[in-house]
Amino acid sequence: MTQHHQSVGESRLERGRRALVKIDGQAGEKVVASLADIAPDFATYLIEFPFGDIYSRPGLDLRAREIATIAALTAMGNVAPQLKVHIEAGLNVGLSRDEITEIIMQMAVYAGFPAALNGLFAAKEVFAHRSATEQERVA
Amino acid sequence: MTQHHQSVGESRLERGRRALVKIDGQAGEKVVASLADIAPDFATYLIEFPFGDIYSRPGLDLRAREIATIAALTAMGNVAPQLKVHIEAGLNVGLSRDEITEIIMQMAVYAGFPAALNGLFAAKEVFAHRSATEQERVA
Amino acid sequence: MTQHHQSVGESRLERGRRALVKIDGQAGEKVVASLADIAPDFATYLIEFPFGDIYSRPGLDLRAREIATIAALTAMGNVAPQLKVHIEAGLNVGLSRDEITEIIMQMAVYAGFPAALNGLFAAKEVFAHRSATEQERVA
Amino acid sequence: MTQHHQSVGESRLERGRRALVKIDGQAGEKVVASLADIAPDFATYLIEFPFGDIYSRPGLDLRAREIATIAALTAMGNVAPQLKVHIEAGLNVGLSRDEITEIIMQMAVYAGFPAALNGLFAAKEVFAHRSATEQERVA
Amino acid sequence: MTQHHQSVGESRLERGRRALVKIDGQAGEKVVASLADIAPDFATYLIEFPFGDIYSRPGLDLRAREIATIAALTAMGNVAPQLKVHIEAGLNVGLSRDEITEIIMQMAVYAGFPAALNGLFAAKEVFAHRSATEQERVA
Amino acid sequence: MTQHHQSVGESRLERGRRALVKIDGQAGEKVVASLADIAPDFATYLIEFPFGDIYSRPGLDLRAREIATIAALTAMGNVAPQLKVHIEAGLNVGLSRDEITEIIMQMAVYAGFPAALNGLFAAKEVFAHRSATEQERVA
Repeated sequence: MTQHHQSVGESRLERGRRALVKIDGQAGEKVVASLADIAPDFATYLIEFPFGDIYSRPGLDLRAREIATIAALTAMGNVAPQLKVHIEAGLNVGLSRDEITEIIMQMAVYAGFPAALNGLFAAKEVFAHRSATEQERVA
Repeated sequence: MTQHHQSVGESRLERGRRALVKIDGQAGEKVVASLADIAPDFATYLIEFPFGDIYSRPGLDLRAREIATIAALTAMGNVAPQLKVHIEAGLNVGLSRDEITEIIMQMAVYAGFPAALNGLFAAKEVFAHRSATEQERVA
Repeated sequence: MTQHHQSVGESRLERGRRALVKIDGQAGEKVVASLADIAPDFATYLIEFPFGDIYSRPGLDLRAREIATIAALTAMGNVAPQLKVHIEAGLNVGLSRDEITEIIMQMAVYAGFPAALNGLFAAKEVFAHRSATEQERVA
Repeated sequence: MTQHHQSVGESRLERGRRALVKIDGQAGEKVVASLADIAPDFATYLIEFPFGDIYSRPGLDLRAREIATIAALTAMGNVAPQLKVHIEAGLNVGLSRDEITEIIMQMAVYAGFPAALNGLFAAKEVFAHRSATEQERVA
Repeated sequence: MTQHHQSVGESRLERGRRALVKIDGQAGEKVVASLADIAPDFATYLIEFPFGDIYSRPGLDLRAREIATIAALTAMGNVAPQLKVHIEAGLNVGLSRDEITEIIMQMAVYAGFPAALNGLFAAKEVFAHRSATEQERVA
Repeated sequence: MTQHHQSVGESRLERGRRALVKIDGQAGEKVVASLADIAPDFATYLIEFPFGDIYSRPGLDLRAREIATIAALTAMGNVAPQLKVHIEAGLNVGLSRDEITEIIMQMAVYAGFPAALNGLFAAKEVFAHRSATEQERVA
């Protein structure tokens, strides 16, 4: 998994947008679009700080970053929509379905079985949706 | 980082004990010892389920598992003693100080700046203690 | 925003009921009604302690109290129905839509972007519902 | 409420399965079934550790154990599906509807009114579903 | 464990004070005293609502109520001082040390091993302090 | 309470630094300094995003912003160091001690009595420290 590079002279917003598309794909763009009428500035912050600043840092590849995020969102247990976006993101940056399942299972140790169970059900939904979409493309 | 292998005929407790020592080192043994007078069975469960079952599974190496655990414990924000044990564990299984710092910083996005700050201060403490201990050994 | 006064000789329940109607409007009455068959005493406590005791205290106006509540419920991130009731309540006691949006956005700093995002989507829903209801009244 | 006994020579999995059926009934079996395609090992852990190890321990009867679990899941506030399973489980091991309602109401003191309210609404749903199922059986 | 009775004509405050002393003992009085200079009204609410209203309700004995509270505070994991008060309270209303240990261990299933570990360490501290105090009295 | 203005051509970092000093005073500078050796970039992000972006936005004055932050941090209950910084910040931007006490007391309704109690004890500590410092200055 190669890290996306920082281009010279690129603004945080431009860099963040590139990272967002690479990591979250369409799911990220949908979140940004859904903020347009209520809090467009927040969409900008969302692109700039998490994606333009944090995910664009060298020192940890995107695969490791998504392991961290999937683990944290599973353990927090109250942010199902964002967990699904990042299970999708994990697949986008090279994690396998089995690896994602391992990460979520491990959270039973730290945040309890209910958090892990709800994380696994979120993954099941994302995997099923992804399989369906892939089959459509093939057909 | 090679995964510790499962030896044939080894019990969950034996396998867990090997994993605990490898991952958490002395910190893990101290936790187990401190349970001896109040809940010795819980010490057994702690070795068997998290270490004998979960951390001993193939499919995700210990480096990835510690990324997940450090992220989750930082985001949860209410388990400082265990976070310190796992920052130490992260170093034990091959994460660098900078990588651990990256993981914790990233949690500002998902669990807020206070959780990330408190995670960084925990890391600072562990790193300082580790440097002091290493210098003692050298001296 | 003037504070609702405490009438002489009024019981906690009467005072709470007045505050509940003023702050939460129909949403508050619906919650109370929905408790009638399972825990009617809890409906009484809900009116008496939060509304009869806390919200009826002088020393902080209702506008400030709703800023506090919207912030806390957004940050907690696991009480969406109550957050929606209090976004509505914020509008009832004089907060503008933009002010509510600001409060929720700020929570990204303390509880992370997912909590703030889910808060904004809750606000979007409440605002849309309110606009629809207001248009009906006009039509 | 008599505790289910540990049979000689029974494995953790067998003992856990017996406890799961006794406590969670069909709801428990459904959870296990839903894990079959995504994380069958996790279903095994779920039966073995919580049910084969913890709930099978003497020293606290199942009635007390379900009081503890219903209280904790209500207070955590982010695990509604598991709370419903354990409200059902509470009824299975001999708690009355009124006792379950008391436990949930008490959580307002420790985790706030929203957590208690959402717990009561979960109980209302479980009670209604149970009444409907019982009527069907009678009819 | 007999429930403390409600005396005719007793105010919520009087009833709450009796319940507080019975359940929390000196620890409860210390909390109330520590609020005197910053928020005396809050001390009143604390006595009236949790103790005068909730713990004084029939329908669940104090033993069951403390099982619920110890479980919830352990699972929440961020309220160590109150958990210690209620481990003490559990002993006051008739729970044994072993029963309290069982309740806390069980929380590993729902809130993870760190929450259960920190709960056990809190119990260890309370038990040790209680043993020391009892020996002093005997000596 | 007038909002601090945005100067033309000022960078996010400069604007954030001005806001940080105004709001958090010395406490803010101490946090930044303590990050210098472990995560200096994080200190920059902390100044830029929360202070340069969020707190510098018009649309909500600093008094309202601190009401929101004190409420949220009290309700979250696991970030005592940051709560103390913001109780101090609340005083810096014009909230009275009584108003801060009201905000924290109100959180009993939403996050339970333990969270409110621990918030009040944090406030008591900050108020006492502030009184001591003010007396020193006078003497």
